[in-house]
Amino acid sequence: MIEPLPPGACVGILGGGQLGRMLALAGARLGFDMHVYTPDTDSPAARVAASATVADWHDAPALRGLAQACDVITLEFENVPVATVDALQEFGAEVRPGARSLTVAQDRLVEKETLRALGLQTAAFHPVDTAAELREALAALGEPAILKTRRHGYDGKGQVRIAPGDDAAAAWAQCGGHPAIVEAMVGFACEISVLVTRTAGGDTLCYDPPRNEHAGGVLRRSTVPSGVAPALQDEACRAAEAVAGALGHLGVMAVEFFVLPDGSLLANEIAPRVHNSGHWTPEACLTGQFEQHIRAIAGWPLGPVTRLMDAWMDNLLGEEALIEAAGHPPGASLTLYGKRTARPERKMGHRVSLAPLSPARRG
Amino acid sequence: MIEPLPPGACVGILGGGQLGRMLALAGARLGFDMHVYTPDTDSPAARVAASATVADWHDAPALRGLAQACDVITLEFENVPVATVDALQEFGAEVRPGARSLTVAQDRLVEKETLRALGLQTAAFHPVDTAAELREALAALGEPAILKTRRHGYDGKGQVRIAPGDDAAAAWAQCGGHPAIVEAMVGFACEISVLVTRTAGGDTLCYDPPRNEHAGGVLRRSTVPSGVAPALQDEACRAAEAVAGALGHLGVMAVEFFVLPDGSLLANEIAPRVHNSGHWTPEACLTGQFEQHIRAIAGWPLGPVTRLMDAWMDNLLGEEALIEAAGHPPGASLTLYGKRTARPERKMGHRVSLAPLSPARRG
Repeated sequence: MIEPLPPGACVGILGGGQLGRMLALAGARLGFDMHVYTPDTDSPAARVAASATVADWHDAPALRGLAQACDVITLEFENVPVATVDALQEFGAEVRPGARSLTVAQDRLVEKETLRALGLQTAAFHPVDTAAELREALAALGEPAILKTRRHGYDGKGQVRIAPGDDAAAAWAQCGGHPAIVEAMVGFACEISVLVTRTAGGDTLCYDPPRNEHAGGVLRRSTVPSGVAPALQDEACRAAEAVAGALGHLGVMAVEFFVLPDGSLLANEIAPRVHNSGHWTPEACLTGQFEQHIRAIAGWPLGPVTRLMDAWMDNLLGEEALIEAAGHPPGASLTLYGKRTARPERKMGHRVSLAPLSPARRG
Repeated sequence: MIEPLPPGACVGILGGGQLGRMLALAGARLGFDMHVYTPDTDSPAARVAASATVADWHDAPALRGLAQACDVITLEFENVPVATVDALQEFGAEVRPGARSLTVAQDRLVEKETLRALGLQTAAFHPVDTAAELREALAALGEPAILKTRRHGYDGKGQVRIAPGDDAAAAWAQCGGHPAIVEAMVGFACEISVLVTRTAGGDTLCYDPPRNEHAGGVLRRSTVPSGVAPALQDEACRAAEAVAGALGHLGVMAVEFFVLPDGSLLANEIAPRVHNSGHWTPEACLTGQFEQHIRAIAGWPLGPVTRLMDAWMDNLLGEEALIEAAGHPPGASLTLYGKRTARPERKMGHRVSLAPLSPARRG
């Protein structure tokens, strides 16, 4: 257990993107002063925070100042250097979640091994450090397969699909020659994700798992109810709770699963933070994922995750967000992230559509 | 019609209290940069805004700077001096709503006369400028009655109840000897308020009118559905739309009505801004009052006001807010205002409780 923070306490966020912005807005609604730490000038999150530090991840004086200013510090993305978290803790800061959640999520090999060690099924995979190892691994796994850098991949970046007959050396070069894993391609029926919140006391609460649809490696739509059998959704929730517990995680985390045609689950990826596939929760539940995360790291009781409406969330990429602003269609709720330039495929906002609760609550 | 502001535009807010804070949070969610102008250092609204000016209402250089920084400027309370709005307009700013909404709402006599001129019923009243005039007015109106200063009253402040036999001179002195009106006390069945949003094109949308309960002059609870007959609610909405139209109002405004035991309506008060009795709208509707106001002043299409849930909103006064933070009851959504000191009876936050939509949508 941790002592609940009083309203008016200062909550730090590592990272200045849209997730940090939505965390800052949710924290403000609970009466906290939010402090954003980011290397980026003019970041979306800093513009809604009570204060901000613009500094490098390894700027010791700036990190010491952050540790002194904040009663608790959290993060909005998993690629915050572990050394940054270590330094903050040395300066006396409470960082929630801790370095263990980051360590596992930052390395696809450690992530997969962690999932396996907990008894979860994953796609078959091999670690590969050279083109020759990739060739061997492909021989064992078969093709098609997918090569993924161990570190710094997101939204389909750092990934190369390898079709039957493709040249392993070319794929290796295309992926940058970084330490990687190669995975068997999985013919899945759909993807779902579990958004689990874990408190310092070890309690967990899961939102109804959404079904996620991607295009070009980028999430386009998340839908609840997912249409997946309730027993399978429950199995995914129990698995995600086990992952959160094993990491000693604090706050919201997402675990993505493939649902196979035979009705079994493969765990795919861990995100130790609020997640794009949970962006429907503030509209469809009394307590959204951003508020829930702040509650957990502040030591406050969690809010209810009961879904009050059916919902689907569409990401707005590039210019889509500007078009949406000009002509808001009835029945949908719009969130824009305050990014200055609408590059193609860049996540600029999202739209949540709601419908009355269907009879099959999680069917 | 006005040109829609692009996301990323700067929206100014005159005033730094909780209404400004919630407007700033809602504006940020739509991708705007919010700029708060307030005489108060460390205001709740400034702490969630991209930028802030701390200056007096009559600080011409600061007002010029605000006019230059903002694409549009709005307000969170009705006692912003009209001279401030006039100065901003001279400096080239777009101020929405304009000075006319303020002029009417700042003076109870002008307010009542405006309501009467539109054919709305109000309580019987007399303007009084001296104790002798008060005595004469009481002789005409009868007692009990209520004496209200024409200017600067809110939450029951600047009001004195006069019981049969009370001394008029004492009541006059207690009320400060300021120009006032004295009203006949009305034996009403309940109070409802209409939250109407008016666009530059003259379109209006009303939320379902809540029923409001006060204690000690302060709103304690707003409930939807109100239980008032649908025809009467419609009549109140049409009346509020007429008021908004007559003022050329832009954005959200609230009009309070007494429902009399015989089923007739008396218009009581105009608030030319978002309103405490609408704090349930963000949770119970797809578009809450704060977002709706920003949409209207930004020239964006209004969002749907359809109510998705039954709701009741309780204000949290003084220490109540801190108790609530420590033990959030399931089924309710908490908003705290970030005020530094929890004085007794001070509005520190509110709680919105939701229930499935009852069959009588507005009954």
